[in-house]
Amino acid sequence: MEKLKKTGMKQTPQRLAIMHHLEGNKCHPSAEDIYKSISPKFPSMSFATVYNTLENLKDHGLIKELTIESGKKRFDPDTSDHHHLICVKCKKIVDLPQEIQLQQKALTTAGVIKGFRILSTQINIYGLCPECTKTSS
Amino acid sequence: MEKLKKTGMKQTPQRLAIMHHLEGNKCHPSAEDIYKSISPKFPSMSFATVYNTLENLKDHGLIKELTIESGKKRFDPDTSDHHHLICVKCKKIVDLPQEIQLQQKALTTAGVIKGFRILSTQINIYGLCPECTKTSS
Repeated sequence: MEKLKKTGMKQTPQRLAIMHHLEGNKCHPSAEDIYKSISPKFPSMSFATVYNTLENLKDHGLIKELTIESGKKRFDPDTSDHHHLICVKCKKIVDLPQEIQLQQKALTTAGVIKGFRILSTQINIYGLCPECTKTSS
Repeated sequence: MEKLKKTGMKQTPQRLAIMHHLEGNKCHPSAEDIYKSISPKFPSMSFATVYNTLENLKDHGLIKELTIESGKKRFDPDTSDHHHLICVKCKKIVDLPQEIQLQQKALTTAGVIKGFRILSTQINIYGLCPECTKTSS
């Protein structure tokens, strides 16, 4: 749990359980999801512990806060550049590979980004996942 | 101030001032920005009034909460689909036209969105604006 050490936070069993829940997690959980999952093991743990641990990890760049529209904050332990496919109905978030590129030519041709030094792009694709498409039709 | 009527909130002078501040605003202000700007006119107005008005407008789909990484919530009165150019240093946010398209072919070829019904895409381009590029070099 190197990440926890980097934040300067004490390695309590609760915090280690939060880290364990996040490690390799592809579900993009909210603080509430993590609290629900871990609290049965630690009945005395407060929601604030989960929330503050997540905020601290985020402030140290060790997890990412997901930037999807509205609703609860979601967290991603994968801090590499990648994009997301978001189901507006069931709120499932799926990672998309970074290879997806913008038509940069269109951008530069339009002149809108002249002089702007691009560091990264983040693409959110909103829609209905296959399961929700079926139940909506 | 038709928007305010739609939320069912009373048209108080404070709320009208918040709406006036947002109308056509391209600066993507935070709740704090709006409070700072309006409170000299209404010294008794609380920050909660600004915050709750914004949340209410957002819940009614009348303004958008911006989904940029980290930091304070920012708000956009332009609810149409459009993208953003975000300076990571000065936090300036500039609207980009919706014409910017993804290379959808790359997406479908990769098979990652098979069965996913795309409703909208939202692209955030992070980097340094021309002014911050100059001061950083």
